Amino acid sequence: MIIDNLIERITELSAPIVVGLDPRLSQIPSYIKEPMYAAKGKNPVTASSAICTFNEAIIDHICDIVPAVKPQIAMYEQFGVAGIMAYYKTIEYAKSKGLIVIGDVKRGDIASTAEAYSAAHLGQAQIDGATTDFAQADFITVNPYMGFDSIEPYLADCDEHDKGLFVLVKTSNPSSRQIQDIETAEGLPLYAHVGEMVGQWGKEYIGSSGFSCIGAVVGATHPSQGRALRELLPHTFFLVPGYGAQGGKASDLTGMLNGDGLGIIVNNSRGITGAYQSQKYKTDEKDFAKAARAAVLDMKADLEAHL
Amino acid sequence: MIIDNLIERITELSAPIVVGLDPRLSQIPSYIKEPMYAAKGKNPVTASSAICTFNEAIIDHICDIVPAVKPQIAMYEQFGVAGIMAYYKTIEYAKSKGLIVIGDVKRGDIASTAEAYSAAHLGQAQIDGATTDFAQADFITVNPYMGFDSIEPYLADCDEHDKGLFVLVKTSNPSSRQIQDIETAEGLPLYAHVGEMVGQWGKEYIGSSGFSCIGAVVGATHPSQGRALRELLPHTFFLVPGYGAQGGKASDLTGMLNGDGLGIIVNNSRGITGAYQSQKYKTDEKDFAKAARAAVLDMKADLEAHL
Repeated sequence: MIIDNLIERITELSAPIVVGLDPRLSQIPSYIKEPMYAAKGKNPVTASSAICTFNEAIIDHICDIVPAVKPQIAMYEQFGVAGIMAYYKTIEYAKSKGLIVIGDVKRGDIASTAEAYSAAHLGQAQIDGATTDFAQADFITVNPYMGFDSIEPYLADCDEHDKGLFVLVKTSNPSSRQIQDIETAEGLPLYAHVGEMVGQWGKEYIGSSGFSCIGAVVGATHPSQGRALRELLPHTFFLVPGYGAQGGKASDLTGMLNGDGLGIIVNNSRGITGAYQSQKYKTDEKDFAKAARAAVLDMKADLEAHL
Repeated sequence: MIIDNLIERITELSAPIVVGLDPRLSQIPSYIKEPMYAAKGKNPVTASSAICTFNEAIIDHICDIVPAVKPQIAMYEQFGVAGIMAYYKTIEYAKSKGLIVIGDVKRGDIASTAEAYSAAHLGQAQIDGATTDFAQADFITVNPYMGFDSIEPYLADCDEHDKGLFVLVKTSNPSSRQIQDIETAEGLPLYAHVGEMVGQWGKEYIGSSGFSCIGAVVGATHPSQGRALRELLPHTFFLVPGYGAQGGKASDLTGMLNGDGLGIIVNNSRGITGAYQSQKYKTDEKDFAKAARAAVLDMKADLEAHL
């Protein structure tokens, strides 16, 4: 099962790290984008080409030290058709380098629509007897607000194509408290109810690692909620955003681990891909991918020291 | 403001109706798709071409009797890059025919990501000084699970580009009760809390019609909840899915109206675009768009009889 593969790679590399590929044009070195702009103008096609070139160099420099990457589709979708092409090309390239891909799409809709989203991101769409066949992510993120019938269609594709989900439970952003922390009549916060549901939904998908292919998104910025969720959900793997730029620290993550020190994969996006622009790694723009690798190694050391 | 334009058109046409453009290949007549398949194979490009041809004929036959259409992006997204092109082409064509477009995208993510989604669907993405410039929807649907900072970036584009939102509050699907109906410690169901937030978020965006550009999605399948939400939210316009195929009836909608008989726009997708295949309208496939028009007129009469 894909969750077992992910955990095996995390263990082999001692790196519970996923690099977020959320390309911002302001992060892409001039030597990549300016020749493209000069030749064909500033437009979605050249922007998307620059993104692909940037991502491929990052992938080349990190694929032997992290198990996974997580493209955030919004950063591609904003460039329309060309952007979506860059999203799928990035997935294809990452997979060709042996990386597990978490597509951060956060989709959520009624069953018949969820089937189509699942076809777009995990499975295959039907074309009157033929099927689509483009590179897909191994996991995607999904939104639970509409309940189980909005999640169920993805489970069929998880089964058929050996894929997994991370369901939003307690997100890393400050306003997540407005809805997710509402106290229910039963005395639990809403995120704990949602967590319990995710645990139930994932019961049939537990691999040899003891973790389910149906995981949860739990922000690094909420250590006490993360600890409570780990107690509630022994078989649920957590995708943890919010480390670094959003303020989450390695010491905040200890409560999310199980007794074997497993249970999480921590995302870092800007802190890795934009490392070359930061004070710490400040370097020539041509070395952006080397700086990204250095930032991954530092993150790995930081996590090892605390977890 | 866009909400005033929408209400003006609803009133002019006596049609609080939005036609959902959720193309299924099984609904597209053979005479459209078979020649495309024969010439270029069954693939995402021919599937997407067939969808565009189908949508354009539907639009031609309904654009003088309804104010709006609502493409469901998942049905396009499943065909990858070609599908996204068909989504934007459909928006462009609908707008060229004077229709208001509600992009049913249900996006929801942290602020920096929401900015990119807003650029994709309501505004413009920045390309180092240039901007993207493709046809955008007038409204989009968004998911509130992550709270206000995940909604705020869209508001800036609503202001700047005269757009609007429909935030998921109480959705039409059966499992919506699992999370949305959870009773909170304050004694209200969760959807009412979310509704109150949407009312607050929309306060600065109320037009001359008395309704806000920040609306709510409230399913036709939940008449009592719809009535409760109308009482709570006098200035919030409701996008109402679930009429027809999902079981909602015109008589279920009366509680969602305000004293002037306004306040809702009711979606119908399969019931219109697939009318030609139904017992009631069963007709030659070449007349699918005429059957769609007949189904709209019948829906209009049904709503008029009850509202």
